[in-house]
Amino acid sequence: MVRIMYRVLYPMRTYLIVSGRINEEVNIMTADWVMPVSARPFITAVSVSPRRYTHKLIKRYKEYVISIPTIDMLRDVWIAGSESGPEKIKKLKISFKDPVKTSVPLIKEAVANLECKVIDEHDYGDHTLFIGEVLYVHYDKNVFKEDDIDLRRGFLAHIAYNKFITFREEIFMP
Amino acid sequence: MVRIMYRVLYPMRTYLIVSGRINEEVNIMTADWVMPVSARPFITAVSVSPRRYTHKLIKRYKEYVISIPTIDMLRDVWIAGSESGPEKIKKLKISFKDPVKTSVPLIKEAVANLECKVIDEHDYGDHTLFIGEVLYVHYDKNVFKEDDIDLRRGFLAHIAYNKFITFREEIFMP
Repeated sequence: MVRIMYRVLYPMRTYLIVSGRINEEVNIMTADWVMPVSARPFITAVSVSPRRYTHKLIKRYKEYVISIPTIDMLRDVWIAGSESGPEKIKKLKISFKDPVKTSVPLIKEAVANLECKVIDEHDYGDHTLFIGEVLYVHYDKNVFKEDDIDLRRGFLAHIAYNKFITFREEIFMP
Repeated sequence: MVRIMYRVLYPMRTYLIVSGRINEEVNIMTADWVMPVSARPFITAVSVSPRRYTHKLIKRYKEYVISIPTIDMLRDVWIAGSESGPEKIKKLKISFKDPVKTSVPLIKEAVANLECKVIDEHDYGDHTLFIGEVLYVHYDKNVFKEDDIDLRRGFLAHIAYNKFITFREEIFMP
């Protein structure tokens, strides 16, 4: 029953969560359970299992970065989601760049990075929901406009396990 | 800056939130800010502005239903998202059916309905985050399988304002 409960809310977008500290310990985790919860101020929620190393790092440093991968990063998205712990970082092709408001590194290859500071957290069932205010957004201006995005970049969504999809470029207006 | 913060997390899936009571007061609202937060038990989070009538109904009855619309329901999704208050219900083509664990009606035309009972709520910024345990899931067995979904049904995602998209049917495996 639980797997079907999941399934009906999918496909869901897939994001990368970066946690830790530059030049100390850094981890990257793939996460589908990411969303905005407030517009002004702009606040996000991320649900993370306590079994993940990322959980420990967000608890410790009270900061995280949401990175937006595209389909050309699929291999890294899969490794970051299917392996736990910072050893996997060496297997990834991504590179880091410096944040401006927090101390969590950004992913250079991502089309956007949101620097978030934890303002609250709650344990629900088998996960912890971290609530993070967005302090700064870095984004590719060729991809994101105020009311538009470049769908040709292949934004990733997750169906189940190792099955991923992307969007059609046709826009529907009611 | 806020609009760009939004934009970088989009496209996001679009869902319908039903609230209220059968034969009393019922409302339907389109919502993008919906996600799972725990697998076992299966718990969802929905972020709702206090300006929405749905906010009042969830506060009052402590229950909501998440319905999964497809692209053939786009007109109704747009009305439910752009108009506030239960008067809009008369304009919708959808019909209701009875729930089994809560007293919130389900949407017959939706490919799935999740009956949720509020277990917690928090105000963050300009929204309230409702946390709801899923008590029952109704779904179309032709659309959802344990590890697969029928993408031909046209699951909806939202880009901005009145721009919606759906998914390509090609599946990528890393």
